[in-house]
Amino acid sequence: MLDYPLLAAMAAVIRTGSFERAARQLHVTPSAVSQRVKLLEERLGTVLVVRGQPCTGTVAGQRLCQHVEQVALLESELRGALPGLSPADGPVTLRIAVNADSLATWFVAAMADVPGCLFDLVLDDQDHSAEWLRRGEVLAAVTASVAPVPGCNSRPLGALRYRATASPEYLRRHFPDGITADSLAAAPCLTFNRKDQLQVQWLRLALSDHESVPEPTPPTHWLPSTHAFVDGALAGMGWGMNPEPLVADHLAAGRLVELVPGRPLDVPLYWQQSRIAGTALAELSRAVLRAGRQALHPIGAALGSPPAV
Amino acid sequence: MLDYPLLAAMAAVIRTGSFERAARQLHVTPSAVSQRVKLLEERLGTVLVVRGQPCTGTVAGQRLCQHVEQVALLESELRGALPGLSPADGPVTLRIAVNADSLATWFVAAMADVPGCLFDLVLDDQDHSAEWLRRGEVLAAVTASVAPVPGCNSRPLGALRYRATASPEYLRRHFPDGITADSLAAAPCLTFNRKDQLQVQWLRLALSDHESVPEPTPPTHWLPSTHAFVDGALAGMGWGMNPEPLVADHLAAGRLVELVPGRPLDVPLYWQQSRIAGTALAELSRAVLRAGRQALHPIGAALGSPPAV
Repeated sequence: MLDYPLLAAMAAVIRTGSFERAARQLHVTPSAVSQRVKLLEERLGTVLVVRGQPCTGTVAGQRLCQHVEQVALLESELRGALPGLSPADGPVTLRIAVNADSLATWFVAAMADVPGCLFDLVLDDQDHSAEWLRRGEVLAAVTASVAPVPGCNSRPLGALRYRATASPEYLRRHFPDGITADSLAAAPCLTFNRKDQLQVQWLRLALSDHESVPEPTPPTHWLPSTHAFVDGALAGMGWGMNPEPLVADHLAAGRLVELVPGRPLDVPLYWQQSRIAGTALAELSRAVLRAGRQALHPIGAALGSPPAV
Repeated sequence: MLDYPLLAAMAAVIRTGSFERAARQLHVTPSAVSQRVKLLEERLGTVLVVRGQPCTGTVAGQRLCQHVEQVALLESELRGALPGLSPADGPVTLRIAVNADSLATWFVAAMADVPGCLFDLVLDDQDHSAEWLRRGEVLAAVTASVAPVPGCNSRPLGALRYRATASPEYLRRHFPDGITADSLAAAPCLTFNRKDQLQVQWLRLALSDHESVPEPTPPTHWLPSTHAFVDGALAGMGWGMNPEPLVADHLAAGRLVELVPGRPLDVPLYWQQSRIAGTALAELSRAVLRAGRQALHPIGAALGSPPAV
C-alpha cells in the first residue's frame, strides 16, 4: 500500500500552500515535512509539489491529494461505525466545485447545515464545474450538466433564475428608442469571464422573434465576481444577467430595471456526487438538495410559459 | 512591423474565447478568423491560441494580446490629439488586476467614473496582483506592494480595514472561555485561498502579547469569494477577516461580533500603473485615487494606536 504519513505531508503542503503551515498543522518541523515530500517524490518517481509562493500540486500531486481526502472520508465513516477507535485527526474536508452565482445566493446555507465538515470550494462556471468531478479533483459539484459523470449520481436541484438588468439611467442613455438589435449590439454589457455564456443566451432568447437578425456581439466589461456584476449594473457600467435573489430588492425599488420586463433566463442546476464518498457527503447532499429546493425554481417551469411581466 | 489585422483576429479569439464570437466582433466569417490566426502562428513559428471551450492564449498569445491592447491605447490617445482621423474601432479595453476585496468594496465606483472605457478585470490576492503587472499582462494593479514594478508608477491608495468577525452563536460555541491560543487553534476559520495570509497575520497580531505561544493553525474552510466570507461568518461556519465596509452594519446590529473588539488589521493598498499607457489610463488613475481616498483609511493610521474598542 501507499505510505500514508508521506502522503499526508504532501497533501498538507498542497492544501495549505506552504511547508511551514503544513508543518504546524502536522506538529512537526518544516524540514521533516520537506524530507517526507522528497521521499515520496523519489519513491513514486515524479514531482508532486511545485515549490513556490504558494506551493501548488502537480497533476500527480493533485490526484494524490484527492486520494488522501477520499481515504480520510472513508476513515471518518469507519469511525462512525466503530466509535471505540482512537480519536480522529480532525474534521473531514469536502472539496466541492460550485458556480459563483450559487455560492452568492443559496450554497452557504447548505454548507452551514453540515457543521461537522470543513469545505474546500472550487469556483467554476456551471457549464464547466462537472469537469472537476470528471478529473477526480472534487467529490461533488453544482453543475448545469444533467448527464452523470462516470461514478457519480446526478440529481436535479432547480433552476437559478436570471434577470437581464441595468440601471434606469443606463437604459435611457443606451436604449433611448427601446431594445432593438442595433442598440443591443452597441450598448456595453457585463460578462463574468470567457466561459460565461449567459448574456449571449439571453440575447438569443430576447431576439428569437426576429430570426433574420444577426446575433449581436456587444462591447463588454469582464467582471469576474457575482456581486461586482450587481454593483456594475447599479453604477450604470452595463447590463448583465444577474441572479434574481440578488436583484429582486433593487428591481422592486427601481434602482435596477429589466431590459425586457418578464423575460428571465432559467439555468437548471444539478448536484452530481461521487458514489464512493460515504456518509459525510451524503449529509451534505441532503442539505444541498434542501437548500436548492428552497431557493431555486422548478426546472422547466418558466420554459414555454408567457412572460410574467 | 507586425501584421496588425492578424494580431487583432488573434486577440479577439483569446479575449472572447471563441472563433465564432471573434468573427462576429470583427464582422468577418469564422473561417477568415481561423485563417488569420493560423497565418500568424506560421509566421511567428509558435502556437498562440489553445483551441478549446473556451479558447485561451498560450504565453506568447497572451503577451501579444497585451501588446495589441497597448497599441490600441496609444491609438486612442492619438485620436484624442488628432480628432480629424477616421473613427476608432470601438472603446478601449483596460486590463487591470485588482484584489477581490477591493472589487467588493470600492473599485466599482472608480470604474463607473470612467464611462468611456471597457474593463477587463483579473482578480488576484493583493500580495500577488503586482505579478500580473510585472509579467506585462495588465496595465495597472491594486496591490499591497509599494515598490514600483519596473516601468510603473506606484501611488498610495489607503488601507482597507479588516475586522476578525464571527456570529455571536459561533463565538459562544467555540470560545466559551474567551479568546485563547488553545481555542484559536481549534475553532474553524475561513480562508479565501492558498494565497490568503490575512487570518494568519491577524492571529500573530492578536497573540503578540503572548510571545511564547506557538502560532496556531486553525482548521479552515476555503471560500474563494468576498461575500461568501461574510455569509459564512453570518451562518456560523467560522471566523474570518472581513472588510469593514461589508460588515459595519452587521457589527452595529449584532449579527456579527469581533473576536477581539477594537483589534482591526489594516492592509495598505497601492495603485501601480504602467507609465506607457497614456490618457485613458490616466483618467482611470485619477478616479481610482479619488475612490480609494473616500473608502480607505490613511495608511499607517491604525498602527501603534491603542484599540479603538
